[in-house]
Amino acid sequence: LRTVDKIAAPISPSADTARALDAADPLRAYRERFVLPEGIIYLDGNSLGALPRVVAERIDACVRQAWGRDLITSWNKARWVDLPQRIGARIERLVGGEPRSIVVGDSTSINLFKVLAAALRLRPDRKIIVSERQNFPTDLYIAEGLAALIGKGHRLRLADTSDELASVIDTDTAVVMLTHVNYRTGAMHDMAELTTLCHEAGALAIWDLAHTAGAVPVELSATGADFAVGCGYKYLNGGPGAPAFVYVSPKWQAKVTQPLSGWFGHVRPFAFEPGFVPAQGIDRFLCGTPPVLSMLALEAALEIWEDIDLAAVREKSKRLTDFFIAAVEHLCTGHDLALASPRDPEARGSQVSFSLPEIGYPLMQALIDRGVIGDFRAPDIVRFGFAPLYVGYMDAWQAAEILAEILNTREWDKPEFKRRAAVT
Amino acid sequence: LRTVDKIAAPISPSADTARALDAADPLRAYRERFVLPEGIIYLDGNSLGALPRVVAERIDACVRQAWGRDLITSWNKARWVDLPQRIGARIERLVGGEPRSIVVGDSTSINLFKVLAAALRLRPDRKIIVSERQNFPTDLYIAEGLAALIGKGHRLRLADTSDELASVIDTDTAVVMLTHVNYRTGAMHDMAELTTLCHEAGALAIWDLAHTAGAVPVELSATGADFAVGCGYKYLNGGPGAPAFVYVSPKWQAKVTQPLSGWFGHVRPFAFEPGFVPAQGIDRFLCGTPPVLSMLALEAALEIWEDIDLAAVREKSKRLTDFFIAAVEHLCTGHDLALASPRDPEARGSQVSFSLPEIGYPLMQALIDRGVIGDFRAPDIVRFGFAPLYVGYMDAWQAAEILAEILNTREWDKPEFKRRAAVT
Repeated sequence: LRTVDKIAAPISPSADTARALDAADPLRAYRERFVLPEGIIYLDGNSLGALPRVVAERIDACVRQAWGRDLITSWNKARWVDLPQRIGARIERLVGGEPRSIVVGDSTSINLFKVLAAALRLRPDRKIIVSERQNFPTDLYIAEGLAALIGKGHRLRLADTSDELASVIDTDTAVVMLTHVNYRTGAMHDMAELTTLCHEAGALAIWDLAHTAGAVPVELSATGADFAVGCGYKYLNGGPGAPAFVYVSPKWQAKVTQPLSGWFGHVRPFAFEPGFVPAQGIDRFLCGTPPVLSMLALEAALEIWEDIDLAAVREKSKRLTDFFIAAVEHLCTGHDLALASPRDPEARGSQVSFSLPEIGYPLMQALIDRGVIGDFRAPDIVRFGFAPLYVGYMDAWQAAEILAEILNTREWDKPEFKRRAAVT
Repeated sequence: LRTVDKIAAPISPSADTARALDAADPLRAYRERFVLPEGIIYLDGNSLGALPRVVAERIDACVRQAWGRDLITSWNKARWVDLPQRIGARIERLVGGEPRSIVVGDSTSINLFKVLAAALRLRPDRKIIVSERQNFPTDLYIAEGLAALIGKGHRLRLADTSDELASVIDTDTAVVMLTHVNYRTGAMHDMAELTTLCHEAGALAIWDLAHTAGAVPVELSATGADFAVGCGYKYLNGGPGAPAFVYVSPKWQAKVTQPLSGWFGHVRPFAFEPGFVPAQGIDRFLCGTPPVLSMLALEAALEIWEDIDLAAVREKSKRLTDFFIAAVEHLCTGHDLALASPRDPEARGSQVSFSLPEIGYPLMQALIDRGVIGDFRAPDIVRFGFAPLYVGYMDAWQAAEILAEILNTREWDKPEFKRRAAVT
């Protein structure tokens, strides 16, 4: 990383600087392992990761051979039965989990329900679930749904700002449930500090790593996190709706069960016993039969990470987002566009968001029309995700140039950009 | 169906009868729409349905084009966002559901959790969940898990036999939760009769249609069923671990919510509001982002059903299983093998099970070794599933012949057939 360090933070962002940074990028070769359509600058890997080249062939082989020819025998022969653990093991390294601390299956929402229910069981006398108003909404919905189901007065206590968190965690708090990197702004929590704070109050920490895994290396084990969940289809590139992962600290695995007690979480799933006996360890956090095709796409996508230096990923992510911020601020001077992400790269995940009151939605449509794919989050945020494995500095430079052009020419002001329905 | 009727029930099963029945089979042409490996007689479609020819190409196009080229825009462009409803609509016809009464996503276990929790909310003063000891275990595990989570004294009351059901349903009963076709024996409940009985006691009826959908046409709407769930990977041929479906009668859709309240069940999932507001109608029974690749395989597989006469499917299923029973009993005389499925085809799903004390497991391994794929269910059941769309009478005849040979030669008695680990 020496060469890159010498270039240092870009003072005057330019196409030449971008070229030099790309040339010195130690991760540059990984770009070739993804399909990146001609004419597209893809800055939405935080919503759906790009297709790893290895996936199409792998899925086709699974469909035609394992399913088509070997049929039911593939549960043994192709070890479909081990997929939740096998994929989990690949994710453990990326998030600093212990061996056999992660399994994959179900959605992030379902997995959050499992660990939140488990955590509440470990703190039976406490009723407060601390989170943030700005958390990804589905996390709050899941907590609401669980609290109503239990019906014993559990309730969410939401901090309005990140700074407020320390003051709302107290001895009533059963669980602190936070998303490590905020989906709108990319603002990142200090996992170690908050986990400690949480434990000092006698509460348990649940981390949602949806915008973390594959972008920001974390240390679940070293920070003492109790539980975590995360998404397979963002920076892990597992494909649309890829199954999610669930982490349970080894210190809790034998001490707690979760209520979605389906057969894959049974100690002897194929003995067909009428009573539920939870499996040993992390396996008890599985539920039903996992969707094999989607699981295999994620497994194949994770092979890319095998020999990657995670520190280099983080270093590039910080530099790349720094460069994009500098480029946008340099090229878009005079427009009503404010950085909504932290300026300090240490406090930021791998995305950059700007607030554009009024014009955020049509502006993003105009960008997409010009081949720069980011996304819009109501009411005024345009988001750009920088997946360190396949986004380069020239992508960032060109995206900033096109953004400036659209603002300068008021291209966003066309009726067709206001009409489209946003979905994701 | 006239021609078939004239052949009537086979009195002396033989290869010639099988040939004649195949020739007169009105569904014979559908066999060509599946991949059926050479040398294999596949009688395990009740565990994993065979691969429909249309699937491989469809999945490959989704991976390479929709994911690889169109990336995030496919949520709109390819309407991934509608998949739960679109696939649900295809299943509605197969199980007699009303329009917009079914959505697809999550596993059968998770969907059962949702409807069971919903049903209990509709009967707040009752604590009993009636089911059968012989129900598919995961259904009982899910009820256990939910009851423990609610912690208000809900409990399972299990009938030991089907006949006992009527006597255990009373005015304490909140829900009667049954699998329509038993996974071990293929014994089928009278859905109309039991649903009526259940309603007369003031309880609600949940039907698990895992071994029903795609094999036995049912009428959820006409019988007044309240809720149902079912499996995508058995007779619907949606691929390994295909997502499951959930049915909620329109009479309840607006009156009840379910606790797994993820963003796909929100009335405005992409408005990112902090509070949960359930979607209208059946959509509130969705939770997280569905696994798109696995969803698309199921969607493609369901196209086969578009113009199928469901009465012909049932007719063939009864005739085919009748024929197999007759063939086995004719060819295996003198062996200790007892029919474990109902002899009356009206009381049987699309499978035939035999009880073989002691030798069931190695016998099934010997059959698989000879290319006849069924499966074993502890302690003594060998199961043969007859998917009416791709299994023929000659398959049934040859399977019976091979079974007889293995019994006559004691081929099952080889050490290698006793050692293998069973998974599914």
